[in-house]
Amino acid sequence: MKIEGRNQVAEALKNGITINKIFVDKNFASRKDDILSLANKNHVRVEFLPKKLLDNMSVTNHHQGYIAEAVDFQYSSVEDILDVSKERKHDPFVVLLDGIEDPHNFGAIIRTCECAGVDGIIIPSVRACQVNETVVRTSTGAIANIKIARVTNLKEAIDTLKKNGLWIYVCETCGEDIYKQNLTGPIGLVVGSEGFGVKQSLRSYCDGIVTLPLKGSVNSLNASVANAIAVYEILRQREYK
Amino acid sequence: MKIEGRNQVAEALKNGITINKIFVDKNFASRKDDILSLANKNHVRVEFLPKKLLDNMSVTNHHQGYIAEAVDFQYSSVEDILDVSKERKHDPFVVLLDGIEDPHNFGAIIRTCECAGVDGIIIPSVRACQVNETVVRTSTGAIANIKIARVTNLKEAIDTLKKNGLWIYVCETCGEDIYKQNLTGPIGLVVGSEGFGVKQSLRSYCDGIVTLPLKGSVNSLNASVANAIAVYEILRQREYK
Repeated sequence: MKIEGRNQVAEALKNGITINKIFVDKNFASRKDDILSLANKNHVRVEFLPKKLLDNMSVTNHHQGYIAEAVDFQYSSVEDILDVSKERKHDPFVVLLDGIEDPHNFGAIIRTCECAGVDGIIIPSVRACQVNETVVRTSTGAIANIKIARVTNLKEAIDTLKKNGLWIYVCETCGEDIYKQNLTGPIGLVVGSEGFGVKQSLRSYCDGIVTLPLKGSVNSLNASVANAIAVYEILRQREYK
Repeated sequence: MKIEGRNQVAEALKNGITINKIFVDKNFASRKDDILSLANKNHVRVEFLPKKLLDNMSVTNHHQGYIAEAVDFQYSSVEDILDVSKERKHDPFVVLLDGIEDPHNFGAIIRTCECAGVDGIIIPSVRACQVNETVVRTSTGAIANIKIARVTNLKEAIDTLKKNGLWIYVCETCGEDIYKQNLTGPIGLVVGSEGFGVKQSLRSYCDGIVTLPLKGSVNSLNASVANAIAVYEILRQREYK
């Protein structure tokens, strides 16, 4: 997998992602550059190439002169995520994504969840965007600091979470006003895809539906925006009782 | 200005944006189509064209078979926005954008603000993204339902808001925890660009700085995500006392 962009490569180096090699714009060879010293410190090989070759190599077309060749993303298990909660000595805080297909939305959600202190994200292995170059780039390095579990069946994952004491809420229209709900305690939040929301079969499997108020005439928020507002409301309730 | 995409054209028709003509994929001519009946009702001419011609005409490359030729976006004044607050009979709730340059971020912010019941958005006329085709498209029709004022000087706009009793808060790092602030009452929220935040000179001109908690190692949220969380926290405080 390629990691592209200045901040992205720097974050990957800092966060122990295994990198085979970094390709750098040869015009930057004489610069004082924290990426080069980080690479040196981590014994990662650096190759200087003409910008044109980097352009050809780039998947996202936003490499900013830095492309790292990393080993493929290592998914975690649901249990790994619950271990994070134990390490952090707080109630589990997990986000489940039901069918997010846009890599920019997925990357944005990863970034927000990492910022909000979510312990991990669970995605289905089919009919959903997987971790790819664009996701890594959009997450601006957050992907290196948050566990992502990939499961064949979200319902089974929810069963595991329920057995561990988590309450599972769906973020959707047509539910209870999120600001009137008690969202403290161990929690899993299910966010659906923009076009279709959370599947009905999954919705009825959860403990409740929370809804963001809409005051205008547009009838929905962008998926990553809705996730951000809901996740930060959970954070607020957990930490500012 | 072109408005492109199924929902976007439908919203524009519903919300009284002046449209000169709508170009529709000729394969849709025999469909029962609410856009065609809306256009008919509003006396807007419809021309059916081959998809290829629509592709050539499209600015955003996401026309979905519908492109409307609309009159250029009509900006409002700061006073127009304050009139909206009066009509709605609530304390003014205004968002000011200091140098958002990405049209996707700008469009996303418009959509979120409309959903949160913000009375209007104020942007500077230079060094910032203006309303264009991509902004209209990303706002998914919200732009038709919210006033946007364009000013030469944000400080002067803030003066006008202050004279009208608004408290002006900047959303930035290094301020007071947003969840510990009282954000009820007449309010203006200043959101900065992703790269540079809000300019220092403007920051010191405002009444306070509010900061979203960051629990991870990534040191910032996306500008449109930060705006969404802050705007919804203000909504929560205003409406759920």
